[in-house]
Amino acid sequence: MSSSLLITDATLNDQRVNIYCEDGVIAAIDPVAKNVERNSDSTLDARGMFAYPPLINSHTHSSMTLFRGNGDDLPLMEWLTQRVWPYERGITVDEIYWGAKLAIVEMIRNGTVFFNDMYWDFHAVAKAVEEMGVRAMIASVIIDVNDEPAKRQKHWDRIERQHQEVEKYSDRVQFAVAPHAVYTVSEESYRWVVDFCKRTGTVLHTHLSETEGEVEGCIKDHGGRPVEYLHRIGALETNLVAAHTVWLTESDIALLGEYGVVCSHNPVSNMKLAVNGVYPYRKLQAAGAITALATDGAGSNNSLDMFQDMKIAALLQKLTDNDTTSLSAHEVLDMASDNPAKFFNLGGKELVVGRQADLILIDHTRPELNPAHSLESHLVYSATGNVVDSVVCDGKVLMEHRHIEGEEEIIAKANEAARVLFARVDDA
Amino acid sequence: MSSSLLITDATLNDQRVNIYCEDGVIAAIDPVAKNVERNSDSTLDARGMFAYPPLINSHTHSSMTLFRGNGDDLPLMEWLTQRVWPYERGITVDEIYWGAKLAIVEMIRNGTVFFNDMYWDFHAVAKAVEEMGVRAMIASVIIDVNDEPAKRQKHWDRIERQHQEVEKYSDRVQFAVAPHAVYTVSEESYRWVVDFCKRTGTVLHTHLSETEGEVEGCIKDHGGRPVEYLHRIGALETNLVAAHTVWLTESDIALLGEYGVVCSHNPVSNMKLAVNGVYPYRKLQAAGAITALATDGAGSNNSLDMFQDMKIAALLQKLTDNDTTSLSAHEVLDMASDNPAKFFNLGGKELVVGRQADLILIDHTRPELNPAHSLESHLVYSATGNVVDSVVCDGKVLMEHRHIEGEEEIIAKANEAARVLFARVDDA
Repeated sequence: MSSSLLITDATLNDQRVNIYCEDGVIAAIDPVAKNVERNSDSTLDARGMFAYPPLINSHTHSSMTLFRGNGDDLPLMEWLTQRVWPYERGITVDEIYWGAKLAIVEMIRNGTVFFNDMYWDFHAVAKAVEEMGVRAMIASVIIDVNDEPAKRQKHWDRIERQHQEVEKYSDRVQFAVAPHAVYTVSEESYRWVVDFCKRTGTVLHTHLSETEGEVEGCIKDHGGRPVEYLHRIGALETNLVAAHTVWLTESDIALLGEYGVVCSHNPVSNMKLAVNGVYPYRKLQAAGAITALATDGAGSNNSLDMFQDMKIAALLQKLTDNDTTSLSAHEVLDMASDNPAKFFNLGGKELVVGRQADLILIDHTRPELNPAHSLESHLVYSATGNVVDSVVCDGKVLMEHRHIEGEEEIIAKANEAARVLFARVDDA
Repeated sequence: MSSSLLITDATLNDQRVNIYCEDGVIAAIDPVAKNVERNSDSTLDARGMFAYPPLINSHTHSSMTLFRGNGDDLPLMEWLTQRVWPYERGITVDEIYWGAKLAIVEMIRNGTVFFNDMYWDFHAVAKAVEEMGVRAMIASVIIDVNDEPAKRQKHWDRIERQHQEVEKYSDRVQFAVAPHAVYTVSEESYRWVVDFCKRTGTVLHTHLSETEGEVEGCIKDHGGRPVEYLHRIGALETNLVAAHTVWLTESDIALLGEYGVVCSHNPVSNMKLAVNGVYPYRKLQAAGAITALATDGAGSNNSLDMFQDMKIAALLQKLTDNDTTSLSAHEVLDMASDNPAKFFNLGGKELVVGRQADLILIDHTRPELNPAHSLESHLVYSATGNVVDSVVCDGKVLMEHRHIEGEEEIIAKANEAARVLFARVDDA
């Protein structure tokens, strides 16, 4: 069934235009002055707003919204062992679903319509994504380091099965496999995943070189640093998204660059969890890696606002390099849009005819976006996700003038899910 | 003339209450369940909202909103000499006024109703503060290092005069003197200001130990580090607000603690301008200094949102100390409220009867404030200023459900002021 949307009187590259979307694609961009008539199934008023591409969140654990604010400012292991893991062991598919819905509401409000997700139930998150109208790459996750070898085959079978089952979703849902990290996945399973990803062209999504402890453990267990180990078992030859990439040597960086790995930077999480290192942006960029930005999960951020995180990323590099010119507004916008766009099958920073009809409308009457010196600067250094007035994904309006259908119920249900989950585990 | 405001059905410390304000003071807090009847001149509906104290911005240059986004990511001296100083030399009183109005609109929206300001025209900012209904400590600024000694007396006379003229304003306007920094003010004038502040009980507001260059220059010019120099000339004995306090030795920290100096932390500005150091929060706090938080001006932030800056401050200390427990949500909220409250004659974090009727209403239906695990955590790690629904200052409603009277005109006028200022200087 064909569907069309006419976005009227948006500002795009300093020009007032109507943007006509058909079947999920930008079909025409008409200057307002030309008075082109278009019939459409629906319209979206964009007077006084900039049309801009949505931002791309390259690494998160969406359902961890349920853990937001439950144990900040604690030592890392105390947080994980007392505030996260006991509850994750008891979490239900329904709770994962409501956590993902809450995350998606928050991301839509902040101008993100695609996220690369790693969490415990593929179908719960996929259902949330389908219903909310956004896009995601959702991983089938594997952690097996403490499992009996006999159980491995069950994980592998589940991954094979889910890889088939993704067919039942729209093309807004993409499939990935996520061996969690080098310290939580057996070498046997990691090698199986690498083979599976090569065989099927599936994206491999993993945590990589986040902490010093991870690096030391990997040298001990696998005789090499995490990047070296992944290189040895062939993981760098897959379509690889490596989250964090903080603890890197020059040769690690050269390898990540050589293989064009997506190195997903999670500045807030890294600072909040005190990983004692900083993503080496300039070196990774220079080496040829795909530099991308991400929020990480709400357990360790605690918000899912790429606008805030663009600012923090730019500040962090300036601090670390002791250089005001490090990670400019232009570069950090690229990390949140153009750089990872092609890898994730998404449109980039230019809104042009033929591109996916994913876009956001930015209210330029807000005080923090004035005076109108530089839109790029304002988006990075002054905006938050709250400058986003409306959101379009796949040619459909997901948020219209700050209103998202069903938001109130989702927030109530997610609250209830968190309450029940924590009470159930605490009482057990 | 007496005036009263009834804030109905707010959530305060987990209780549903009506807050009755009379003549700028919280006169009663009645549990909703008690059905107390109050007549009031006006009402504010607070259903579903937390009542919370506003945040305190301890150092800014409000009118520098006009410079927002005009020259980011540049080397510091290039930014100052090419993008700031030429325009500041040409700025008019009217432009300063509109810049301050824009800043105040932004701060109100972000839940700040008091700021400690340092900029070029005392009366322009005071007029803006009076009209907008907020509070500020506004400085009469002195920079004279390149002036003929004969001109000094003129600065001193102006400070004396403005100190008298502040009487014509309401008590929402407080007076301070701001010798800009040790490298921009002659020792003669600095000593005169110290004497003036001691004589009159006036607050002395200055930049202090922001950069390594400042410290080196001070040792060369004055035979001691900035803190030592200020100590020698008696400045630590005044009611002193020292902005930045990044480049400090243990003995500097001990002095700032001994004299109970307000050490205003500007994390975003310090990172953005790459001052190559970090405010030593734990040491200053332990030494007895008054630790406070600030945005700095919009030229170097670029937003004026204390909520965002609380998060960044907490992240920065965790990174620097390599400790997840550094600068907890509770502590950073204190830096933005309780710690500096008494110094600036403001109410603290507890909303109680008899306190100034300054408060904000926080919309707890927003996705990023859910699930409801911990309000303090959410305000610091997940909120932005956009969670603020309504703002009350001195018993008057300054923002009601995100609407500020006259906001549209202020944004338009500030835009025009910036446009005219930059065009005039560029054409000269």
